[in-house]
Amino acid sequence: MTDHLSDLFAFLRIPSVSTDSARRADLRQCASWLADKFTAIGLTAQIHQTPGHPIVSARNRRRADRRTVLIYGHYDVQPVDPLTLWRGDPFEPTLSADGVITARGATDNKGQILAHILGVAETIAADGDLPLNIIFLVEGEEEIGSPHLAAFLREHRDELACDIIAISDTGMIEPNRGTLTYGLRGIACLELTVSGPDKDLHSGIYGGAVANPLTVISRLVATLHDAAGHVTISGFYDDVAPLEPWERAAWAKLPMRDTDLLKLTGAPALAPEQGYTALECAWGRPTAELNGLYGGYQGEGSKTVIPAEAHAKISFRLVPDQDPIKILSLAEQHCRKHCPPGVTLTVTRGHSGAAYRLDPDTAFGRAAQRALTLAFPGKTPALVREGGSIPIVSDFKKILGADTLLLGLALPDARIHSPNETFTVENFEGGIRLNKILLRELARA
Amino acid sequence: MTDHLSDLFAFLRIPSVSTDSARRADLRQCASWLADKFTAIGLTAQIHQTPGHPIVSARNRRRADRRTVLIYGHYDVQPVDPLTLWRGDPFEPTLSADGVITARGATDNKGQILAHILGVAETIAADGDLPLNIIFLVEGEEEIGSPHLAAFLREHRDELACDIIAISDTGMIEPNRGTLTYGLRGIACLELTVSGPDKDLHSGIYGGAVANPLTVISRLVATLHDAAGHVTISGFYDDVAPLEPWERAAWAKLPMRDTDLLKLTGAPALAPEQGYTALECAWGRPTAELNGLYGGYQGEGSKTVIPAEAHAKISFRLVPDQDPIKILSLAEQHCRKHCPPGVTLTVTRGHSGAAYRLDPDTAFGRAAQRALTLAFPGKTPALVREGGSIPIVSDFKKILGADTLLLGLALPDARIHSPNETFTVENFEGGIRLNKILLRELARA
Repeated sequence: MTDHLSDLFAFLRIPSVSTDSARRADLRQCASWLADKFTAIGLTAQIHQTPGHPIVSARNRRRADRRTVLIYGHYDVQPVDPLTLWRGDPFEPTLSADGVITARGATDNKGQILAHILGVAETIAADGDLPLNIIFLVEGEEEIGSPHLAAFLREHRDELACDIIAISDTGMIEPNRGTLTYGLRGIACLELTVSGPDKDLHSGIYGGAVANPLTVISRLVATLHDAAGHVTISGFYDDVAPLEPWERAAWAKLPMRDTDLLKLTGAPALAPEQGYTALECAWGRPTAELNGLYGGYQGEGSKTVIPAEAHAKISFRLVPDQDPIKILSLAEQHCRKHCPPGVTLTVTRGHSGAAYRLDPDTAFGRAAQRALTLAFPGKTPALVREGGSIPIVSDFKKILGADTLLLGLALPDARIHSPNETFTVENFEGGIRLNKILLRELARA
Repeated sequence: MTDHLSDLFAFLRIPSVSTDSARRADLRQCASWLADKFTAIGLTAQIHQTPGHPIVSARNRRRADRRTVLIYGHYDVQPVDPLTLWRGDPFEPTLSADGVITARGATDNKGQILAHILGVAETIAADGDLPLNIIFLVEGEEEIGSPHLAAFLREHRDELACDIIAISDTGMIEPNRGTLTYGLRGIACLELTVSGPDKDLHSGIYGGAVANPLTVISRLVATLHDAAGHVTISGFYDDVAPLEPWERAAWAKLPMRDTDLLKLTGAPALAPEQGYTALECAWGRPTAELNGLYGGYQGEGSKTVIPAEAHAKISFRLVPDQDPIKILSLAEQHCRKHCPPGVTLTVTRGHSGAAYRLDPDTAFGRAAQRALTLAFPGKTPALVREGGSIPIVSDFKKILGADTLLLGLALPDARIHSPNETFTVENFEGGIRLNKILLRELARA
């Protein structure tokens, strides 16, 4: 096994699941591992405590006569459930004969951020220095919405001052084709709890007399869409910037077709919003998605209860120029308006972040496209948007005033957030290569 | 502690949860305990193996010159979840200073069937014999719909031949008021699985492109009712026998008012079907209830997934003259008709049983009313129907040709099927008294 792979496997073995409060010690250990790595390659590292999981930063000596690039990533990973669908331990990485690494976090985001770190390490090892000032910023709360990062950015605004930001936490349209993601969807999360009887009731004895929280929550979340797949919350689409004709035309020529989406999702059929292709829906249209719905008996056989409570976890994916806070207000109003009497509705707001768009035709945008062309030669880089959210990209723009280059290495079949997440050795090494070229191109941009 | 209570506590300590396949040994142990008890009081006991949990029978010597009564009960109990809501171990019974026993199965059905057994024991101890032939039949699968009892009845039809059946597994309208339940609702269970993507998907990356199984199942089960609480399955009400005016008038005079139901359920408000009181809905109107609904992330925080599957557990409570099998067919047709494309719907039928009604003005019915008056003096017995289901009551009628007297001891606040189930010592001793009087009254009816 190469040194690169040994490093990655050690990183992947730390079960840094940020949603799980029982994993706090693992997240601390992961932050220490990173700080040690940064120190070993010749950078000055620091672990910053937050009310949540620590942030790790690292930098070379800042010189006023050269540009500064900030590279952001995250060391926390998604939960692993359902664990039964994993072919092995999610935190014991495996390498297949054809070069596929399987582990939770392999692509999202440990593999990608480590590629940047190792690219910097090799540049320092080869040249004795870097062509620019570098700041690494690696947090442990990306998967829970980065609740403490914005405050950290504000507090450390001067030390973090930079000309451009680079992040590899997005998709690569196909193997060996450099991909610049110029847009991301935003997110806004909401949790509903419908409370009825003060205890679980026998559905024979009381059924018909009281409202069933499960029935109420079903009828309530069923009002979020119409039959054509449009979101029915009043005002939801008011601020949506329509897809531009050039985007729709460019996307139609990408190697990502709706037939690919069908295959990737493994769904019986695609179900886009009426009037749009599935790709347009995933990249450029807002959604209301149920991420969790639960209440009552879930075990073997039947248990004839009317449960005391029912729960729904909802997330909205947003596009420019929707305001997440306004969307949460509209959604809450909608739910309260459609909740029948006989139950109590509790609405809890979760994390949120606005959508993001970058003009690819700036000096740094063009430098990034050159680096992508050189690191992955033979193909013109793809210009894409992405359906996922990195809310802190908007924060970077707002607080540090810098644009972000999204240079993702996640292949369409990497199964991020799903069981059996993968990363290819080819993309890992490609990412290390890309970092080295990118630093040079950004220095001369 | 009295011998009666020692017996009951020993019975309650056996965790005989029939839905849980890991509890098979506990159910066998419970059957053995019962057989030993029957033998100890002077009856001839037998444990009958079934493809599921065993059936225990016991009898005295059959004499052709006297009547035969069959007493039915069950030794299995409901699951205990949510365990966190129990104040103590559900299988370590406690006795409060004011005579309240708390344990899973305290009322449903261990306390009630044991009262009959101890009543018989005391009659034999006092008189050396019983005034009639007795057959006890105690099964271990009532809470999972008695899947093997009907076959057992058919196979042992001759040995089980009887004139009348008595069961204490229903409610007592108020403390110390004998209650004859002359009607029960039927039941029909259905489980829905909606399958979409072949794995959990990142709801950012793919949201909008595919149907979300949670959204689909919500919209699907939301079609089961209209806003007035009526079930919208086509044909659902076709065979419903309307409530008779005398019943509605009699029930309105019972000490069970809608205000009592409100208090018992702890719901913010009652929500009866339009045109009926809550009590009429619970006793005499059919329902479609969600007993479980689940899919996606249920843990702390958020996980932005589109889950591969969503599940709903549904049970219909039926009234005379609805046919459970016809209702399941209509329900399945309804669900298939309302399921959108983009997902796969799997419908699994569960257990079912028809509703039951008895004429209280037969010789045995009048004998039961006399026994209730004598065992609980000072108040006219209440004639009620009940919302719960004992499907095997219809089977007894069909296979053995005998009517069933439902002489329940479950108080309205006994919390059966809920955490912290209770039984009062007063009702336990009242049940023993009732059994002794009932045997005498049935013998001379």
